[in-house]
Amino acid sequence: MFNFNSVSHSICLNRYRALPLILTSATSLAAVPVYALQQGQIEVYPPNWWAGMQNPEVELMIYGEDVADDAVSLATGNVKVSRVKALDSENYLFVTLDTSGAQAQDLMLTLTDNDRSQRTVHYPLEKRKEGSASRKGFGPEDAIYLIAPDRFANGNTANDNVDGYQDKVDRQFKGGRHGGDIQGIVDNLDYIKSMGFTQIWTMPMLENAMDKYSYHGYSTTDYYNIDPRFGSNDAFIDFSEKAKSEGVGVIMDMVLNHIGSNHKWMEDTPSKDWINNEGKFVGTTHKRESLHDPHAIESDIKGFSDGWFVPTMPDLNQRNPHLANYLVQNAIWWVETADLSGIRVDTYSYPDKAFLSEWTNRLMDEYPNFNIVGEEWSVNPAITAYWQAGSQRHDDYDSALPSVMDFPLQAAVVKALNSDESWNSGFITVYETLATDFLYGDPNNLVIFPDNHDMSRIYTQLGHDKAKWNMAMTLLLTTRGIPQVFYGTEILMGNEGSDDHGIIRSDFPGGWPSDSDKNAFTGKGLNNDERWAQQRIKALLQLRQTYPQLFQGKLKHYAPIDGVYTYFREAEKGAKRSAQSDNGNNVEKIMVILNKKAVDLPLSTYTEMLKTNDSITRISDGKTFKSTDTISLSAMSANVFIVR
Amino acid sequence: MFNFNSVSHSICLNRYRALPLILTSATSLAAVPVYALQQGQIEVYPPNWWAGMQNPEVELMIYGEDVADDAVSLATGNVKVSRVKALDSENYLFVTLDTSGAQAQDLMLTLTDNDRSQRTVHYPLEKRKEGSASRKGFGPEDAIYLIAPDRFANGNTANDNVDGYQDKVDRQFKGGRHGGDIQGIVDNLDYIKSMGFTQIWTMPMLENAMDKYSYHGYSTTDYYNIDPRFGSNDAFIDFSEKAKSEGVGVIMDMVLNHIGSNHKWMEDTPSKDWINNEGKFVGTTHKRESLHDPHAIESDIKGFSDGWFVPTMPDLNQRNPHLANYLVQNAIWWVETADLSGIRVDTYSYPDKAFLSEWTNRLMDEYPNFNIVGEEWSVNPAITAYWQAGSQRHDDYDSALPSVMDFPLQAAVVKALNSDESWNSGFITVYETLATDFLYGDPNNLVIFPDNHDMSRIYTQLGHDKAKWNMAMTLLLTTRGIPQVFYGTEILMGNEGSDDHGIIRSDFPGGWPSDSDKNAFTGKGLNNDERWAQQRIKALLQLRQTYPQLFQGKLKHYAPIDGVYTYFREAEKGAKRSAQSDNGNNVEKIMVILNKKAVDLPLSTYTEMLKTNDSITRISDGKTFKSTDTISLSAMSANVFIVR
Repeated sequence: MFNFNSVSHSICLNRYRALPLILTSATSLAAVPVYALQQGQIEVYPPNWWAGMQNPEVELMIYGEDVADDAVSLATGNVKVSRVKALDSENYLFVTLDTSGAQAQDLMLTLTDNDRSQRTVHYPLEKRKEGSASRKGFGPEDAIYLIAPDRFANGNTANDNVDGYQDKVDRQFKGGRHGGDIQGIVDNLDYIKSMGFTQIWTMPMLENAMDKYSYHGYSTTDYYNIDPRFGSNDAFIDFSEKAKSEGVGVIMDMVLNHIGSNHKWMEDTPSKDWINNEGKFVGTTHKRESLHDPHAIESDIKGFSDGWFVPTMPDLNQRNPHLANYLVQNAIWWVETADLSGIRVDTYSYPDKAFLSEWTNRLMDEYPNFNIVGEEWSVNPAITAYWQAGSQRHDDYDSALPSVMDFPLQAAVVKALNSDESWNSGFITVYETLATDFLYGDPNNLVIFPDNHDMSRIYTQLGHDKAKWNMAMTLLLTTRGIPQVFYGTEILMGNEGSDDHGIIRSDFPGGWPSDSDKNAFTGKGLNNDERWAQQRIKALLQLRQTYPQLFQGKLKHYAPIDGVYTYFREAEKGAKRSAQSDNGNNVEKIMVILNKKAVDLPLSTYTEMLKTNDSITRISDGKTFKSTDTISLSAMSANVFIVR
Repeated sequence: MFNFNSVSHSICLNRYRALPLILTSATSLAAVPVYALQQGQIEVYPPNWWAGMQNPEVELMIYGEDVADDAVSLATGNVKVSRVKALDSENYLFVTLDTSGAQAQDLMLTLTDNDRSQRTVHYPLEKRKEGSASRKGFGPEDAIYLIAPDRFANGNTANDNVDGYQDKVDRQFKGGRHGGDIQGIVDNLDYIKSMGFTQIWTMPMLENAMDKYSYHGYSTTDYYNIDPRFGSNDAFIDFSEKAKSEGVGVIMDMVLNHIGSNHKWMEDTPSKDWINNEGKFVGTTHKRESLHDPHAIESDIKGFSDGWFVPTMPDLNQRNPHLANYLVQNAIWWVETADLSGIRVDTYSYPDKAFLSEWTNRLMDEYPNFNIVGEEWSVNPAITAYWQAGSQRHDDYDSALPSVMDFPLQAAVVKALNSDESWNSGFITVYETLATDFLYGDPNNLVIFPDNHDMSRIYTQLGHDKAKWNMAMTLLLTTRGIPQVFYGTEILMGNEGSDDHGIIRSDFPGGWPSDSDKNAFTGKGLNNDERWAQQRIKALLQLRQTYPQLFQGKLKHYAPIDGVYTYFREAEKGAKRSAQSDNGNNVEKIMVILNKKAVDLPLSTYTEMLKTNDSITRISDGKTFKSTDTISLSAMSANVFIVR
């Protein structure tokens, strides 16, 4: 927690500072990361709301000493207090406002306690940005750059250490903070854009006032404020605005399952049932299958959902409807406040299942064209597909989640490249996995990736083999889905000899003022392989940007034969064609051939996809072939062609 | 083909000899396995039919020289000729009879050719056996013994070689005929029954008049006659009757996908489209995923369905409606004729998909309580589940198939036992596979198996490790599904050093008159391990027979922890309880614990399934424990308990 001072009796909140508060007497407080509620202080979550939301109700969590017994009245306008509810703690009061038909305005809530003394809170009901509800989320035309903010670039050394926060910068410690921040990302938006990425997903940047290992951001101690070591809410909003002006969207990483153990809820818990397992550590089984298993024992289901990740991550009980509202509203608040183009949900399946349905439905009700991707780390497509909206299900579960992370494809690609070709190994693994797409409500909207922040880097997974890396990256940047690339993958970053997360999330070269020898942003000091890799990713991303309609379109793939795997992307019928001059020809298809052995391949093999007078041009060298030609492909090559 | 002689102008068929024929002039014919239609000879398929079938229509394939142009009339009763159709060959005529409301009777069909000469065929419309339509197919209460008839027991050496059949007995050749036959199975029904098997699935025994490798039976050359080297139709019916009288059902192995290349259809093809790929060999891709793949290329779908298995197995085009009728009626004919309790369908997914729907629906319409299990060799439950009736599907495909072979579980069990325990290996593999049962319409009706005739024997797959074998067999004889055991698995038969099918299907010791040293039927010459294994299987099968309602009931399994995998079987609520005296107590549950390391296990771990005053008795040694006890289990053990 990070408080700030106020001296006025009744203040209007700093718009992007998430702690509206009122002090009945002027008190000067020092910033206190370990939470302690001050006398008379009132906090309201969410700190503001908007008029004209699809759901006119907002439930305020009012936090203040002995506030639970207070009567609530509202002096302003046509907004009504529709419900008031106290739980176990005397310091929390849940007040539901009905804003139906209300205009943007400053609301004034009056809290009256038993001895009739009153406290007043100004509560802003703001005007929404134009087009907010119809915002378009990230999609198959995009490519996502995943950044570990602490490890990407240190744009502001002044916030490396912040008073009151125990976890200080230590670049030598793999599990420590290294100083990367929002400013570092802003400083390098040009690089990200020039590479061809159109979306940035940052690992969480909300406050993590943890004693150690706070850099990763998954131990939230404040759902409404950016950690000051990354910047501020204003800095985050500024980052999002700048990115948007460059045509790059921002995807926020949200954690619904757990908090950090230094969250104030652990000191002053709103209700006895707020934290699972009575607030004490019991580890999750991680056995997500239990949720779906017709043979499951009830205790296994509970063990998965209610168990904690680690002792420093208390597991939230989202069955509590007030906590559920809190999390739903927090997500909406960030979408509105920071103008997000998407959300990535951490450990998606771990919270209460009914809550997940409510959360996604309420988000998608507010933003019907939005995108949200859930992390469900299973390599079984039947499990991952369960969560995606529109999938066939064995039960009547209602999921509105537009996207899930495609862990099955990630595993299949690595397995395919690391195994010899046979009837049941090699490329058939990828083919089979994609064939199983019939399980998904929308396979084109899956987020696909060669690696991420929680696993060995793809270059290492592929045995530091450049040709395999090229095949994997080519496939994942051209097949169906929304590709996500982890920062550094474009310069062959690896984690040889260690799968420690802190090593996997090593510093991006050039991100620190002291990185004088090697700078991946400028290319300085990169070796030939790194430079080649960076250019390869750039070329593939440029292709996606030149022909987005192809990547939004259909995948058609041939069953692999003898280590040759060939597929096409083509625009859906009726989609706007790519009219890019391109010698006056419309480009209707992209063709990709991945092959293991050197091969002379007659293009007539693909008569169903290549017309007689089609020609294909390879993007790497510009060579053109006729559809009647036989092409010679070198071993372990990844060939991308434009079909004209 | 195997013809027989007749001298009468108009004959009534031998009931269980499948070739009704009429000769216009008396001709003496030698048995000719290579087919040659004789002048005036008429064959009708099916050779007889029954009154009172659900579907009153039967389409006769009439085969005779120049029969295609004949007019057809029917002199008898209230049966009508509803359709007559000739195809490309002048020697085939398809005549549909409508038997609606007809009684059993001898029909007389008259075929009149262009010059008004007539041929007459007596066609028996028989009375069905009582209860035929409502016959109960095999089910979860059963245990199936899978036999390779050529390799199980040679009960009749007189039919080892048959004139006109080129493939002779050669016991020294692994791919040759070894002489096993129907009589060998009949002779050993006592053994099979005493072991506790309640169903026998025999590899196909229809005529395979192939030049070599005919022993396996999957190259049908006559859909209506048992291969004389196995016996005869009468012998097969006799076997089924004898088995039934012992409480053992017979499951027939049927091949809808292909024929043997010596089938007469290859010499005289009913229509140009009868055989896929214009009658010429083009190999199947085996890539069954193509059928479901939303990204599939049409040629891959065709390549899978229309490709041939091997050059000696021409692939049938079941899109031809007359061939479809032929195959449907053939299956019904065998159910009625041999009083089958089930069908196993070879290479289930390979024929035309719409045909498979028609075939299973028509079978199940005739026999609503029947069981049919399809072989779909995929370890992806999403693929196998697609075919089972009642499964959720992404398309509107209508499958009536009650059961599929559970290849995913087979693979999972082997993987679980051959890998170390970790968060994603060991027993979790089995747990995850069973958890994915939500994909199936009826997981309890899957046929489960440790191995079969097409893969290495389980003992070999598990590295000839007795403890692993015991764990695998215990699991597969007690978890959900209908267990199938391959002959010889009960005496640890293996195939070390070779995965040749002929070695996998080695002779069962004791099945040949010359097997004087070792006889698994009597136990003579078995070593201690073999004897122990046989007793273990027997004990587990006896348990299934004593408490069938438990195995028809629910599976409840605990997520594995530290290499301990525990589950229970319990009767469905309302199911008849096991009132077997059993000290006056009802047995309501079976408990199974499989563990890798030696462990002291508090039974209180299982409070959800074990009541405070329950006791559990281990079947292997009769030891009883209270539900409050801690039990010590030795490493790599498989413990089955009766819960009282």
